[in-house]
Parts: sequence; structure tokens; C-alpha cells
Amino acid sequence: MRRVHTRQTVFETPWFEVIAKSDPDHQEEPPYYAIQTSDYVTVLAITEASEVLLVQQFRPAVEATTLELPSGHVDPPETPEAAARRELEEETGFIAGSLELLGCLIPDTGRLSNRLWCFYASGVRRSENGVPTEGGLQCVCLSPLELNRRMNTGAFDHALHLAVLSLAAAKGKWSFGV
Amino acid sequence: MRRVHTRQTVFETPWFEVIAKSDPDHQEEPPYYAIQTSDYVTVLAITEASEVLLVQQFRPAVEATTLELPSGHVDPPETPEAAARRELEEETGFIAGSLELLGCLIPDTGRLSNRLWCFYASGVRRSENGVPTEGGLQCVCLSPLELNRRMNTGAFDHALHLAVLSLAAAKGKWSFGV
Repeated sequence: MRRVHTRQTVFETPWFEVIAKSDPDHQEEPPYYAIQTSDYVTVLAITEASEVLLVQQFRPAVEATTLELPSGHVDPPETPEAAARRELEEETGFIAGSLELLGCLIPDTGRLSNRLWCFYASGVRRSENGVPTEGGLQCVCLSPLELNRRMNTGAFDHALHLAVLSLAAAKGKWSFGV
Repeated sequence: MRRVHTRQTVFETPWFEVIAKSDPDHQEEPPYYAIQTSDYVTVLAITEASEVLLVQQFRPAVEATTLELPSGHVDPPETPEAAARRELEEETGFIAGSLELLGCLIPDTGRLSNRLWCFYASGVRRSENGVPTEGGLQCVCLSPLELNRRMNTGAFDHALHLAVLSLAAAKGKWSFGV
């Protein structure tokens, strides 16, 4: 398929749709199935103690408990920045001072149609509650050195969040410490 | 959802299935929908001229032409390493000498159930044909500096492939050159 001329929703859940895309100029080709969902946001948030805020939670898609950066979906009409602030506070109990957009990526060019907005948060402080308001998850603070160690052992292995570290490294805000 | 006890295929394409996952202990919760597909492989391949092999192609999911590392699916029973070698040759016309596994990541903990196998290829040389055998794509060779520049401008923006650069940087095989 070289172009997309028709789009048809062929399956729907409350969180995403499966879209069959076709090019009428190449009707011999089967449709291409893409997943349409709202954009993702992820925050690399560094506390005043120079630690990274992370979240541990059970993930049904992979049937395992993962260690990840705070992240979630943009709920239109909120902006990606507002979503990043909201997810950070809901998932960690911390509030961002300033947020810097590191970049806007494609999560999976082969299957997903949405975007991933990557932010760097500084001036991060504990909220009045100081605890996550979202259930079923636990906030973890790690030094950058320890997070790199967990990446190298495979304990920090969410590809989308390693991508955020690449963007941060390119801007001098992360070091892989080789 | 804290555990997964039942899994039901609710939609199927030739490339992936949508699986509804439920926890009978929490029947009040709606099922969780995950995408099940075969594992991904991606190769960071460096030529003898110290250039990175990349691929340009139209991607129906995002309806745009993207710049990416050579990548694809593992076709069982082939191993991830065999898939990496096959995809590299099919997409670039180059053959890997030695392949090193940089790591095995989760592409999207929120929605995808598969894994992403990340390889570093050295001793890369042109095959006898020397051209991609897969149609509709174009091989591009870039210096690491130029690839970093394109990452910073958003022209190299596939998150899963930026993640490969993070793994490579941690092993001293990539520098973001800040």
C-alpha cells in the first residue's frame, strides 16, 4: 500500500478502534489494519533529590508488573502538557514545576496511529496529599544510576520510555553513564 | 485488574488478534483489550563506512513516509536473530557479520503483548544483489551525527527505534553527541 484512500472502523472498544485502511488503486492488496487511540504522554520527572519518579503497576497486556515512567493518555480537549501534569500527579503524588517538551514520537509506525508526547519535568515537588490518587500502582524514586542499571538488567524495559531517555540524552538532560 | 484469568479472542486479522482479558475476582471491571502479535525485531546496523542503515517507506498506520531502522516481525519458528538477519537483508540489501543482542523490550506495556528484540550488527557488508528485495522501500545510509540531527528535528521519530539507541548508548555503542 502506497497511499490510504478509505478508512473503515471494523472493531471498537472504549479505548481504541481497529481501522481497516485501503488504497482503491491497489484493490488486489488486503486492507491494512491500524489501531487508533488517543495520544500518549510520558514524563521524565526529576525530584529535588535528583531522583527519577517511576511507577510500578500490573499491566494486563503483558500480564506482569512493570517499572515505568509516569504516563497515560491525552483526554481531549486537554493539551498534551495538561495530560502530562495530570498523569504525573495522579500516578506519583508529585507536581511538576516547569515542563519541557522533549519531542513528539510515533509509538509504533507499524500498527498504532497515535503520537507519544515526551516531557521533561523539573522543579518537581510532592503534592499536599503526596501519594498517588490512581489505584493499583506504587511510586518508586530511583537515582539515574540505578535506573540505568535496571535498564541494563532488563528490569526497566518499556521501549516507549527508553525512547524518552534518548530524547533527554540528546538535550544533555540524561547520561547513560558508560 | 490485578491478575488475568481468562483470555478470549474477540477480533482477528492475518497480522494480530484483539484479546479480551478478565479477572473473575473482579467481575465488575470491564475486560482489558490487548493486541497480540508476533515479536518485533530491530537492527542498529553500522556499515564499514561507519554509517547507519535506515529505511524509508510509506506507513499506512500513520499515513506518512517514515525513516526507521531495519525492522520487522519474527516469523516462528525462526529465532529473533534469524529474523533480524532476514529483515536487514530484505530491507537494505546488506548482510550482518556478527549480531549482538542489545536487549529485549516491551513495545507498549499498555496495549501490545509482544516483545521487541533489539540487535546491534557489525561487520555489515553489501549482499551480492546489494539492493532491498522488499518492495516499496528505500535504503538510506546516514552518519551517526546526521541521524542524531534528524532525531532532534523530529525526522527520525519512531519511538521503538529511539529505544534501541538508548540500549546501544548504555553499552558504549552509540553517542548522542551532546
